[in-house]
Amino acid sequence: MEQYASFLTLIGSVIALIFAGITAKRVLGYDCGTEKMKKISDSVKAGANAYLKRQYTVVAVFFVAMFVVLAVMSFTKLLSPFVPFAFVTGGFFSGLSGFVGMKIATAANARTANACQTSLNRGLRVAFSAGSVMGFTVVGLGLLDISIWLILLKYAFRLQEAEITAAMLTFGMGASSMALFARVGGGIFTKAADVGADLVGKVEAGIPEDDPRNPAVIADNVGDNVGDVAGMGADLYESYVGSVISSMALGVAAFKNMPLKAMSVPLLIAVSGILCSVIGTFLVHTKENATQKDLLKSLGRGTNFSAIMIAVISFPIVWFCLNGKESIGLYFAILSGLLAGVLIGRSTEYFTSDSYQPTKKLAAKSETGSATIIIGGLGLGMLSTALPILIVAACILIAFFISGGSKSTDLGLYGIALSAVGMLSTLGITLATDAYGPVADNAGGIAEMAGLDASVRERTDALDSLGNTTAATGKGFAIGSAALTALALMASYINKVREINPDAETVFNIMTPTVLVGLFIGTCLPFIFAALTMDSVGKAAQSIVVEVRRQFKEIAGLMDGKADADYASCVDLCTKSSLREMIMPTVVAIVAPILTGLVLGYQGVVGMLAGATASGFLMAIFMSNAGGAWDNAKKYIESGVHGGKGSDQHKAAVVGDTVGDPFKDTSGPAINILIKLLSMVSIVFAAVVVNFHLL
Amino acid sequence: MEQYASFLTLIGSVIALIFAGITAKRVLGYDCGTEKMKKISDSVKAGANAYLKRQYTVVAVFFVAMFVVLAVMSFTKLLSPFVPFAFVTGGFFSGLSGFVGMKIATAANARTANACQTSLNRGLRVAFSAGSVMGFTVVGLGLLDISIWLILLKYAFRLQEAEITAAMLTFGMGASSMALFARVGGGIFTKAADVGADLVGKVEAGIPEDDPRNPAVIADNVGDNVGDVAGMGADLYESYVGSVISSMALGVAAFKNMPLKAMSVPLLIAVSGILCSVIGTFLVHTKENATQKDLLKSLGRGTNFSAIMIAVISFPIVWFCLNGKESIGLYFAILSGLLAGVLIGRSTEYFTSDSYQPTKKLAAKSETGSATIIIGGLGLGMLSTALPILIVAACILIAFFISGGSKSTDLGLYGIALSAVGMLSTLGITLATDAYGPVADNAGGIAEMAGLDASVRERTDALDSLGNTTAATGKGFAIGSAALTALALMASYINKVREINPDAETVFNIMTPTVLVGLFIGTCLPFIFAALTMDSVGKAAQSIVVEVRRQFKEIAGLMDGKADADYASCVDLCTKSSLREMIMPTVVAIVAPILTGLVLGYQGVVGMLAGATASGFLMAIFMSNAGGAWDNAKKYIESGVHGGKGSDQHKAAVVGDTVGDPFKDTSGPAINILIKLLSMVSIVFAAVVVNFHLL
Repeated sequence: MEQYASFLTLIGSVIALIFAGITAKRVLGYDCGTEKMKKISDSVKAGANAYLKRQYTVVAVFFVAMFVVLAVMSFTKLLSPFVPFAFVTGGFFSGLSGFVGMKIATAANARTANACQTSLNRGLRVAFSAGSVMGFTVVGLGLLDISIWLILLKYAFRLQEAEITAAMLTFGMGASSMALFARVGGGIFTKAADVGADLVGKVEAGIPEDDPRNPAVIADNVGDNVGDVAGMGADLYESYVGSVISSMALGVAAFKNMPLKAMSVPLLIAVSGILCSVIGTFLVHTKENATQKDLLKSLGRGTNFSAIMIAVISFPIVWFCLNGKESIGLYFAILSGLLAGVLIGRSTEYFTSDSYQPTKKLAAKSETGSATIIIGGLGLGMLSTALPILIVAACILIAFFISGGSKSTDLGLYGIALSAVGMLSTLGITLATDAYGPVADNAGGIAEMAGLDASVRERTDALDSLGNTTAATGKGFAIGSAALTALALMASYINKVREINPDAETVFNIMTPTVLVGLFIGTCLPFIFAALTMDSVGKAAQSIVVEVRRQFKEIAGLMDGKADADYASCVDLCTKSSLREMIMPTVVAIVAPILTGLVLGYQGVVGMLAGATASGFLMAIFMSNAGGAWDNAKKYIESGVHGGKGSDQHKAAVVGDTVGDPFKDTSGPAINILIKLLSMVSIVFAAVVVNFHLL
Repeated sequence: MEQYASFLTLIGSVIALIFAGITAKRVLGYDCGTEKMKKISDSVKAGANAYLKRQYTVVAVFFVAMFVVLAVMSFTKLLSPFVPFAFVTGGFFSGLSGFVGMKIATAANARTANACQTSLNRGLRVAFSAGSVMGFTVVGLGLLDISIWLILLKYAFRLQEAEITAAMLTFGMGASSMALFARVGGGIFTKAADVGADLVGKVEAGIPEDDPRNPAVIADNVGDNVGDVAGMGADLYESYVGSVISSMALGVAAFKNMPLKAMSVPLLIAVSGILCSVIGTFLVHTKENATQKDLLKSLGRGTNFSAIMIAVISFPIVWFCLNGKESIGLYFAILSGLLAGVLIGRSTEYFTSDSYQPTKKLAAKSETGSATIIIGGLGLGMLSTALPILIVAACILIAFFISGGSKSTDLGLYGIALSAVGMLSTLGITLATDAYGPVADNAGGIAEMAGLDASVRERTDALDSLGNTTAATGKGFAIGSAALTALALMASYINKVREINPDAETVFNIMTPTVLVGLFIGTCLPFIFAALTMDSVGKAAQSIVVEVRRQFKEIAGLMDGKADADYASCVDLCTKSSLREMIMPTVVAIVAPILTGLVLGYQGVVGMLAGATASGFLMAIFMSNAGGAWDNAKKYIESGVHGGKGSDQHKAAVVGDTVGDPFKDTSGPAINILIKLLSMVSIVFAAVVVNFHLL
């Protein structure tokens, strides 16, 4: 079996890509609607295309520069010769995942709006199909990259397993860098446009969301596609690939006598996950006159089926690939990962959905103004970190000890890595339920701008709010797997250090000053990173505010609908500022581990990674949940409680939502990538740090 | 010399207390002003007295319960028999420090207002004298408690040095628990009243701050005294005592052949610090027609002189007590602590004073509304953690290695502990410059309510804003010393574990799952704690808002000044809610380390302490600086820029300030205590955890 794992992986990836292709064709077969809808959709498409083109140009410069650095390191024997190429392919496929996602999302928005003219179920089908295209493209490209390299290194270059995984780990750095650029750049774009549009349009001018008179409205819709879609695609590509390759590397370390078998386990789970997800998508259908509840049920049917299937299939994979009964603890590690993902998702839902007390209470705080709703949201976000941290803690302990970690640390760490693979194995379908949200959101915008019937907007809103609930689960998986993958990468880093210098001290005593100081610095990094990204959104949003105000003042007849707004100028402003602002946070993420290593040595680096993982996990949950709760509290008020739309309470809630925007869509998700990128950079530059350091 | 150290400490403490007494008498000799001023001051006094009486009653129940628990543990030989008594005295003296501070502050407020009728300099003298009473009471009581126990254990019970410091460490737990109650309870009271008064009075009714028509105005002034003064007193008593006893304990561990000498060093530095501070206060005087700049200069003269003096005196103390040239590295550790304190203070000032760019830029964000100023302040606060973390990192590394940590870890840890003692040695005078702020703030309130000339309010405002600048330095010392003391306590915990079980594994490998999970949980605790305290402020403030609105509506003629507001009901509401709300956070702080220990064992506890120290340090700085910057941005706008008072920009800034209130005066400072209390609780319950744990 394990002999064919790399080829099975290739086949699995091709199946995913073919399924994505067929689904895409089906989406493109739907009707676009009226001429006006097509025109709006085209301008969104053009803006998103133009942005991504310019983003990729900037990123290409970075990749060329890094390629040169890595090539020089390869020549001086500090790195394997495959690393520079692996780095570039990781980045390329990550970017491609985002690009494909954007393409299908911009193609599906008008089509979803049009389908919603018929029924809610039709709308769901189009939007969910678009989400599926993205989901399966991400997992397909991920496994394609992995299997090609695997086959190449094993059969063409005939490397040993340990050498193969060592080389492959480093292409994670390419994927992570690309993902960070995409998330940060896209995140700044979308939130600058959103905040800017809301602040002047909704708050000052008092016109509704997505009103065509608002000059920032197209930029806002472009933002959904380049941030929430393309950013998310690149991001989850990175998570997926990162979890698989780090567990491959730890498997090889844990099973030195049968490395190929240990390597095959995560691959076979990933391939099975694709098949389960494909079947799962066929379960997502419902009757024509379905209610929102029916839709939720049908989505749940798809994801739950896939999760249960993979839980069943993993058992024989572990049993037959490894030592039967003796290794079956690893199976339970996978199960604990799956369960932890579901539970974190539930906790996210509890804290951010307006069906539960926390968000309802938050909405009630609008009665005493914006200050109390802000304090309340910050408190809610911070408090909501407790459950996920306990869940992840339990998952780490269970995965480690049940896998046999008390006998062999390597085995325990392999178990932790596999639990992350378990969490992400059904990414194909969970991402589909996550990614269709922005499509529905965009469809709503187009319905509004094209002046469609109010019932259409209602339906797209229903889809959107449904997406918020399913996205909570997706977020749970993304954040939980990020923490576990980061730990797995930390372990891989230590193995790397041991490989470079067999005499290296691989006990990392927390009371050693270098480890401790590393820990302090690592704990600080997510704070700095969040600050930089929020500041960027603030700066970019302010420029949009100024521009929108200018247009309202200077374009005669705009407010009466007699003149058109200059949409392009807002798109251009967002593009420029987000590309400028995405540089600094990424540079921090790449330079920090190298500098820490050069001063404190690899002991300090491990401290830094541990600190960054712990505080990054917390900050990501805090920011995502606070933002989500503010968003839903606002929507809850709009549903008619606490004064409803237009009341003072609603205005207070809009302030909360605006603060929450960069929290949940820029800084929070980017921190997920940050903690993995830090480990990846540390691994790539390990040889430099081990050979040259101050303390 | 070291033979007399305990008696010298006693003498030093008596000198401090006598100086505090003389200064108090001088303050009470000043005139209270008009009958109306006396009446207002009396109601503030009555409210503060009533609150503290009830607070101490609640706290007494806790202390009795804990005493019983500790007594039972002593009987079962899990603790030394001195611990329950030491615990109680620590709590008693900490509470007494706060009580004395409150007494003098409530006596000085009207007197300061009256003195400001003459000149700014007079006002400063009264307020600064009141601050000095508090400063010297805190250090005097701290050293009194330490020296009495030292003399008792050494000469009456004839214990060995190691046993003495082990017993004394645990009275820190009493001081820390009391401090947490005082900070959290007082912090909730003061901010609930402040936020409540501002939200309805300033924002809704549009009446100025401290307007007598506002029913919450007396509660607001009471809050300044029970929160900013009594809370701060208990807090810094705990910091001071904690740093001295932890370095005594580590000194005994580092110098096993001359424990008494090593124990004497922190004591002699503390005593010298008192003398330097007393002399320093005499340098705080200026000419009668002094400007604000002159006052700042004169305050700076006092604190700088004391700091330089102590830097000089520490040299012979280290040289003669220990091994001359061989130990002189420890002197440089002390110096690095002093310098780090100053630098963190400077960084705080840079990020929060409106003389510098960050706060000016933050004020400019008010142009686009409250959402952008909130995002900006959060970003500023997070970004401002970078410098302090680097300063503390450098201080840890320098203190550890220069003290000889590469040869002996114990020696390095002793160096780190001494650097905290260095930071806090001149607490007498730095606390005076910190504590006079709330007195000036209160004086302003009285001036307003008593209808004094506008020039008086201007002068009290000048004193207040001067206080903000000097308080920045004080905060730098408090936060920096908290992190270093927490590390010293962690080291003491490990020594304790080693003492209980000599076979205990005292290497804490960050990759061990128990340590790692402990780290995750510890990193989370400050988030939970901040959430709970902010939530408490929010809840309490909302009840005040409702009450103030009710009075505005129901009391006829209140707005025209024809009827009196019912001040007492607001004071009562604040008292009740703050006492109710202070329980939960304190319980979390005490239960968390015990539970973590029972599940994860002492390895997990060390991970938890490291995580909590790192993230607590960051959260404390983030919250304090964000709050400080919002406060000063609002004041900056009130000075006439960005539209000035009453403009939309000002309203946006008030929202920022309101969010910042619980940040900087409740959650932020309480986290400082939290991180030390966690270690203290761990030390006291070490025997339980070492003997009974799950993993």
